[in-house]
Amino acid sequence: MRIAVIGTGSAGQALASGLRRIGHDVVTGTRDPQATAARDDWNGGALATYAEAAVGADLVVNATGGGVSLAALAEVDLEGKVLLDVANPLDFSNGFPPTLTVKDTDSLAEQIQRAHPEARVVKSLNTVNGAVMVDPARLPEPTTIFVAGDDEAACRLVRGLLVELGWSDIVEFPALDAARGLEMWLPLWVRLMSTLGTADFNLKLVR
Amino acid sequence: MRIAVIGTGSAGQALASGLRRIGHDVVTGTRDPQATAARDDWNGGALATYAEAAVGADLVVNATGGGVSLAALAEVDLEGKVLLDVANPLDFSNGFPPTLTVKDTDSLAEQIQRAHPEARVVKSLNTVNGAVMVDPARLPEPTTIFVAGDDEAACRLVRGLLVELGWSDIVEFPALDAARGLEMWLPLWVRLMSTLGTADFNLKLVR
Repeated sequence: MRIAVIGTGSAGQALASGLRRIGHDVVTGTRDPQATAARDDWNGGALATYAEAAVGADLVVNATGGGVSLAALAEVDLEGKVLLDVANPLDFSNGFPPTLTVKDTDSLAEQIQRAHPEARVVKSLNTVNGAVMVDPARLPEPTTIFVAGDDEAACRLVRGLLVELGWSDIVEFPALDAARGLEMWLPLWVRLMSTLGTADFNLKLVR
Repeated sequence: MRIAVIGTGSAGQALASGLRRIGHDVVTGTRDPQATAARDDWNGGALATYAEAAVGADLVVNATGGGVSLAALAEVDLEGKVLLDVANPLDFSNGFPPTLTVKDTDSLAEQIQRAHPEARVVKSLNTVNGAVMVDPARLPEPTTIFVAGDDEAACRLVRGLLVELGWSDIVEFPALDAARGLEMWLPLWVRLMSTLGTADFNLKLVR
């Protein structure tokens, strides 16, 4: 599958590497490809502008920071595309703990869907960090990942990708507005990261 | 230990029964004890008014609905008391899914603490339903429970009670404002309850 990963932060880089490793044709979209390529922390891989990256892609992944997602995606033609949104609307401008720029009665995923009614937005993977997203087996036992979206075929495509990445316990919400709960998990996630001293953790849903 | 459980809903009733079962002297506080005693769903046990219930209690548990917690607790003398807050600020007035009356930069637990600076508020058990609160072994494997509070001795007292109830994986946040994350877990919890068709579930923190 041809996949465009939008965003070059730790989540974007982990996703690009992880998706390439399982055989996908991945290009990363960034504002300025030359500047990204010159960064010390850039781990390599094909780069293109936001607009170019998505051309011909079967799947576009939003891995930009939540605060800049709408601006970055405004440059991308998402007509008919499945958009996997892994971003979180965290605002660190007032220090730790971060707050959420959108919550409760709305979510970043829904904001993106409203800005791009021609796309089919699916929220997933935002509940874990980049390393766990693409390698759930790094944790000592299987954990749970969530999928939320209004479009059944788009959710199915994302679910298939999750299985390829090694996820086995996948809980699906057939409505994009369930992204509210998935994004509101982050304040607890951030506290846990701070208390545990690691981002290598996830929840397992026991039922 | 003498424990006052404030609130007669399903969480309050489960807590009163569960705490009595492990040997505590429990009285339930309610607005109108006679009216509560006459209710079809009242499972028995000592009743008193909000104000009377807390007299002589070593621990007061807020198990009222989040929307009425501040009003109910206003009738209780919490001077020097440890207050275990298990409530959630859920607002169902606009139907399902509920929204939160307080979130992100504040929490119900912190509102209660500000209203009762003479009390030592600890947030715990709000992340599971009443049946699981007092009987974590009803789930197929051990799961995780959280404790958040500013007062170390108060947190220790609550932790001891959790161990008595059967909780083994207890993650403690040494700050009451971590209650924000614990309360913001609820939107995901509510969706899960709806999707799974049961409230008999919890998260296990895998790290």
